Amino acid sequence: MTHSIHPIDVILHKRDGLALTDAEIRAFIHAIVRRTPTRQLVTDAQIAAFLMAVFLRGLDPRELATLTEAMRFSGEVAYTEALNTFAIDKHSTGGVGDKTSLLIAPILASAGLAHPTSEGVPGIVVPMISGRSLGHTGGTLDKLETIPGFNTQLSFPEMRDVLKQYAAALIGQTPTIVPADRILYALRDHTGTVESPFLITASIMSKKLAEGLNALVLDVKVGSGAFMRTYEKSKLLAELMVETGEASGTRTAALLTTMDEPLGRFSGNWVEVWECVDIMKQHRHPMSADLIELSNILSGWMLHLAGRADTPEAGATLSDEILRSGAAYKAWLAIVEAQSGDITVFEDPTTQHKPQATRTITAHQTGYLAAMDCKQVGWAVQRLGAGRAKPGDPVSAHAGIEMHAKLGDKLEANQPIVTLFAEDPELLGEPEAMLRETLQISAAPPQFQPLIREIITKENLA
Amino acid sequence: MTHSIHPIDVILHKRDGLALTDAEIRAFIHAIVRRTPTRQLVTDAQIAAFLMAVFLRGLDPRELATLTEAMRFSGEVAYTEALNTFAIDKHSTGGVGDKTSLLIAPILASAGLAHPTSEGVPGIVVPMISGRSLGHTGGTLDKLETIPGFNTQLSFPEMRDVLKQYAAALIGQTPTIVPADRILYALRDHTGTVESPFLITASIMSKKLAEGLNALVLDVKVGSGAFMRTYEKSKLLAELMVETGEASGTRTAALLTTMDEPLGRFSGNWVEVWECVDIMKQHRHPMSADLIELSNILSGWMLHLAGRADTPEAGATLSDEILRSGAAYKAWLAIVEAQSGDITVFEDPTTQHKPQATRTITAHQTGYLAAMDCKQVGWAVQRLGAGRAKPGDPVSAHAGIEMHAKLGDKLEANQPIVTLFAEDPELLGEPEAMLRETLQISAAPPQFQPLIREIITKENLA
Repeated sequence: MTHSIHPIDVILHKRDGLALTDAEIRAFIHAIVRRTPTRQLVTDAQIAAFLMAVFLRGLDPRELATLTEAMRFSGEVAYTEALNTFAIDKHSTGGVGDKTSLLIAPILASAGLAHPTSEGVPGIVVPMISGRSLGHTGGTLDKLETIPGFNTQLSFPEMRDVLKQYAAALIGQTPTIVPADRILYALRDHTGTVESPFLITASIMSKKLAEGLNALVLDVKVGSGAFMRTYEKSKLLAELMVETGEASGTRTAALLTTMDEPLGRFSGNWVEVWECVDIMKQHRHPMSADLIELSNILSGWMLHLAGRADTPEAGATLSDEILRSGAAYKAWLAIVEAQSGDITVFEDPTTQHKPQATRTITAHQTGYLAAMDCKQVGWAVQRLGAGRAKPGDPVSAHAGIEMHAKLGDKLEANQPIVTLFAEDPELLGEPEAMLRETLQISAAPPQFQPLIREIITKENLA
Repeated sequence: MTHSIHPIDVILHKRDGLALTDAEIRAFIHAIVRRTPTRQLVTDAQIAAFLMAVFLRGLDPRELATLTEAMRFSGEVAYTEALNTFAIDKHSTGGVGDKTSLLIAPILASAGLAHPTSEGVPGIVVPMISGRSLGHTGGTLDKLETIPGFNTQLSFPEMRDVLKQYAAALIGQTPTIVPADRILYALRDHTGTVESPFLITASIMSKKLAEGLNALVLDVKVGSGAFMRTYEKSKLLAELMVETGEASGTRTAALLTTMDEPLGRFSGNWVEVWECVDIMKQHRHPMSADLIELSNILSGWMLHLAGRADTPEAGATLSDEILRSGAAYKAWLAIVEAQSGDITVFEDPTTQHKPQATRTITAHQTGYLAAMDCKQVGWAVQRLGAGRAKPGDPVSAHAGIEMHAKLGDKLEANQPIVTLFAEDPELLGEPEAMLRETLQISAAPPQFQPLIREIITKENLA
């Protein structure tokens, strides 16, 4: 805290529903990251009281932008700006089987490499900092780490070197990136202040903006597999994130996308890499159609924002061309090699991380795959060993599920719906019961939600 | 926490505006007092989040009654019930020069001794647990401790012995009485959750009800010297306290009384004892008139609730008779002796704790004493040395002020308004400036508020 701003006053002002000044917000975040055990500039209890006050009182757009910026600059930033090119990333709020990052990074890298700047740097770079599996959702970092040797722990200078040559880098969060968020998140987690759209926005956007982005595309999930419980809450989150990104000078678009069933064919860790490698090698499995469609739409928006396509739709077409041409796969192999990964495992992905135990759930009657609680499916994947019960737990490379049907598919009795993979047969029982409980078969064809529900940009913000 | 209730769920429920179950409230308070540094059943951050959620969401009457009871029974209780008589106390929300406890305890003790029970116990007992000076307000305990030898640290069994014989005991808070409040209060103080009427009610009432009372009279201050900033807030607090007391089976009445100037002649520590001794010795100084009036009104309510007077007004008359008869002074001397105090200091109070430095502020013009910020007067008294800047600081027995005029009094130019006392002339400057700044003289006579503004009992609760 500076000599003139005390944490208690910041708490009191927010408690009483006042808008905090920029100086108050910066001083509070500053105190959070500068405190030491012997120098408690602000206590855990004060941070918790602040978080609950923000949860219940909210933040106006200026306060949210300032909080996000203060958090963004609370630690090391990627300084991608030094490359003097167009930096872009995609962020998903988390889903089941959501592996679009593994396709989008090489697609955009390929587009970036195809058109270098006058300084010889790729015209688009993707400085992607990913997270780990959390709750019922998967984590890109856990998936990448099933590739032998793959090193996600690059420093920012190392990342910039990779970007300069390969246009994309896939790295993990480090303790020096947005340290304010790590402290705040740990407290939010046990003080009942996780689900605030304001605090979620500041948490996500501070980390994304620390990448030094010109543009950002957000995939905000709605439906039974989304973190946010209602469409309205997801939409509010999308709007807040777009507003906050734009306030920091980053072009930001958010797509509200349906997460009522796992995306694509596989959910897990290695199996998701396998699915993407198949797609990039032109082995398009019918169950991957929704994954390919969503990846192309998100890439399309990114290519559009990067000036490579006049419309997002033209961008999606370009994205699919890049995928089909083999250029994305080439970029993928280069990125993985640049990060010390063993690319020979992609030659026949089916031979890697073979599960020790499998079990298939079949339809008990003829009908349509009508509904599921996608969150419960995600928890079943976690319980198989692919996710973690708490931060720091190990995850299994082998565990996961393969869906054999999509919502609305006609099923004959005894037709396979889903296959479970685990490292030990004993791990199959509970997830099997969870899946059996949630998979619903109906006599009549069910109603669907479209994959893309709504698109939020600064042009259509209220 | 019991195995089935987790602190996080209690926080979430209150955050979301739900009414907490009795089991949730009890489990949360239980966890607070049972935790140890190595067994964090609930963290400071969780308590802070809970407090802020309660601050912003409030508590319904049942929740408040349950929280108060859970806190009351979080430690040792006085078990005054064992005496099988009528236990009653008075509590003030804190003012400047508010020394009514020093008169009320002996008045009620005298009434109690006059009519013992069939078991030979006084028919009324006053198990008074008092606090220390806080902020701009004085503390009964600090005043009592200016009496040489006076021991406020009686155990509850010792207190019951004193009550059995002398009908009143004046003791201090100990770490084993309502430990939940000590923990909560320490956190409230630095997390911006002090001023919640719900949390204030639970804090005050848990401690008062731990005395094992049949009845309680509350003096809730309003005006510029009150803790609560508006009349409405004071009234809400009074209503919540009456509702909570009655819910626990204790007859409770609250008087909203004006605190726009110091009560009586002196404000400080020893000087307040001196003023009360004078009154009990029938030396009624004109400046003590409001103090005597308020003490009789509060005692009158207590005597009425204890069944000694048909009406509060008849009780006030009885109270004044007890004062004038010398019975109260006799009871006072007995109580002080029972608690090891040296009663010879009362022979000539003017000779005790003489200040080393005095200064008198006089009227700069002819007119009426029109207004003052009574809180600022209280802070001036604190700065003279009578109060403390933070808990644990020592207080001066010598420091204080003597008012020579009441609001509305006609003043000639150069007529004394207030005399300051301190242990060191250097301590006079700042308080003098504070008092000069706030004492207003007007040409026309000012408007007043009556001493008693409103009375809240269960009969007139909404």
